[in-house]
Amino acid sequence: VKTIRVKTKPPYTVVIGEGALGKLPSVLRNVSPSKVVIVSSPRVRKHWGTELERVLRATRMPSYWIEVPDGEQHKTLRTVEAITRSMARAGADRRSVVIAFGGGVVGDMAGFAAATFMRGISLIQLPTTLLGQVDASVGGKTGVDLPEGKNLLGAFHQPKAVIVDLRFLSTLPSRQFRAGLFEVLKCGFIADRSLLGYCERHREEILRCEPDALLSIVSSALQVKAKIVAADERESGQRRILNFGHTIGHAIEAATRYRSLLHGEAVAWGIIAAAEIGANVGVTRPDHAERIVEAVMAFGPLPPVTAKPREVLSRMKADKKNVYGIPHFVLVPEVGSAKVVKGVDPRIVRAAVEGICQA
Amino acid sequence: VKTIRVKTKPPYTVVIGEGALGKLPSVLRNVSPSKVVIVSSPRVRKHWGTELERVLRATRMPSYWIEVPDGEQHKTLRTVEAITRSMARAGADRRSVVIAFGGGVVGDMAGFAAATFMRGISLIQLPTTLLGQVDASVGGKTGVDLPEGKNLLGAFHQPKAVIVDLRFLSTLPSRQFRAGLFEVLKCGFIADRSLLGYCERHREEILRCEPDALLSIVSSALQVKAKIVAADERESGQRRILNFGHTIGHAIEAATRYRSLLHGEAVAWGIIAAAEIGANVGVTRPDHAERIVEAVMAFGPLPPVTAKPREVLSRMKADKKNVYGIPHFVLVPEVGSAKVVKGVDPRIVRAAVEGICQA
Repeated sequence: VKTIRVKTKPPYTVVIGEGALGKLPSVLRNVSPSKVVIVSSPRVRKHWGTELERVLRATRMPSYWIEVPDGEQHKTLRTVEAITRSMARAGADRRSVVIAFGGGVVGDMAGFAAATFMRGISLIQLPTTLLGQVDASVGGKTGVDLPEGKNLLGAFHQPKAVIVDLRFLSTLPSRQFRAGLFEVLKCGFIADRSLLGYCERHREEILRCEPDALLSIVSSALQVKAKIVAADERESGQRRILNFGHTIGHAIEAATRYRSLLHGEAVAWGIIAAAEIGANVGVTRPDHAERIVEAVMAFGPLPPVTAKPREVLSRMKADKKNVYGIPHFVLVPEVGSAKVVKGVDPRIVRAAVEGICQA
Repeated sequence: VKTIRVKTKPPYTVVIGEGALGKLPSVLRNVSPSKVVIVSSPRVRKHWGTELERVLRATRMPSYWIEVPDGEQHKTLRTVEAITRSMARAGADRRSVVIAFGGGVVGDMAGFAAATFMRGISLIQLPTTLLGQVDASVGGKTGVDLPEGKNLLGAFHQPKAVIVDLRFLSTLPSRQFRAGLFEVLKCGFIADRSLLGYCERHREEILRCEPDALLSIVSSALQVKAKIVAADERESGQRRILNFGHTIGHAIEAATRYRSLLHGEAVAWGIIAAAEIGANVGVTRPDHAERIVEAVMAFGPLPPVTAKPREVLSRMKADKKNVYGIPHFVLVPEVGSAKVVKGVDPRIVRAAVEGICQA
């Protein structure tokens, strides 16, 4: 079991490993909650509910399950309202703790519920997908979608702890596992060349979910995330580099109505496009752009982007990362580094988007 | 025009006076927003919309009005969703600012919208009711009600500035004005004996809305609030004394379904009950309890509490200020001081509630 400290104010710990769930009782004893509220999906509860209940039983703390439907289409204020109303009826109070037990969508919604219930109560992230483990659970971003755009409503609410039990990945559908790998690669591209090298050399072990390989890539990706988040808790500067591939990725998700592509897959296409944009504006070294595209493809194949280029481009204009209506791009000069670039020639953007939409 | 500094992190300024609205342009220049979103009610816009637009025109900043229905029954997630969707459609971004232009309900909802839109954007409070000016606009509390209870969902989100223009009170219905006076008195009871003395000596001038009297009581009440809020931004300790009269007051509001009493009126009844409880448990000096009740009555008459005592008592058990299900009471040992007391004999609470329900 490895441990990473996220140096936000206040700081918190990420525990990573096979069986990391065993650390939950000591985390809960530190929080000392009046009640434990578990927000989860039916699928996760079916696979791992008994195991979590076994661990909780030892703490003798009163606990209460709230099941929510999984899937981006349910990441709405309506679901958060249902969660928080259920918490109120169950007698949750300011000293209660929410455990977000599921993938990124459950983590976002349970986190937003914890951020806003009685103006903020304690939260523990217990992510069960690779995407949740390497990305969504750390950093305090919580929220829901509006019909007008993804994650338009939310809060920064850092968890008291994050427990990353790699056993949960054994019941994850393979497509979802691979989608999470693109966020791992992203961490390599923007900040950790050796993580990228590891992914390139150990592709087979990673895809077979070998424990050593999983522990290595998940903890490296979390190191990157923890460091960037601590330096810029509320995304006013450096943290934006974590959005590498996300400007176009989010637009692809919106243009395809969150149906044909998983988040990680859309980000993978966004990374491919960002590599091409970077090369064409002269920011990304051409050989590095090629390496990025190859590394992404090696974890493919990706489902095709079925939207029209102009739909993707129009969604980009509505992206919440825009300021004064101007899209910002995160570009990678050389693998292991990243910077935010504005004023990219729209023709270069259009060409890159056309490239992935025709693929 | 008086100025009070609220020493939160970061700090902000409250500007108070007839014509304080004239300070808005310089506040806006400091924020330097991409767009100004004004959230207001039809009534406030009708009375003061032209005046605000005149002041905004000088800044040449693009502005956009969102009207929301007033009244506690509309303080819901549904209204916040409507506000934020409207913001998204109007092209608001992370650099936009929300101006909450209305009473406490508008301030709570516009504040919650600003707290959560794109995970938090700038907010300026421009309160138009006495309650909003002396209480709701300062301190960063924002939120909405759930069917299960008042203010169950929300966020702490401090404004960039609060502008308290006393001219707005001239169009306020007299009953609403008097309801706000009870929050002024509350500040006197818990922390400022000289404010209480002023209210007792200048009752007539206050009720006639004489400018000097208004400036005096509003700025004194805000001094109290600013000091307490800065010492305990997230209500983990001392700030709870601001809830004097609110434990029973909130229960009365819930038991009467937010219909027959205004918030300030329910708090007034709660203060009367808390004075009696304080005297009966031996915390409040009897002559001071009497002085509290008399000061409240002098700004009456109050509409009767039409709920049954057991309805009020059962609502108290669901109060979000409870921890582990135990109600906490704020009691005033002597006027000008307050403390949080737990373990109050339920029979004494019941007797006090019966006293005000029969009134």
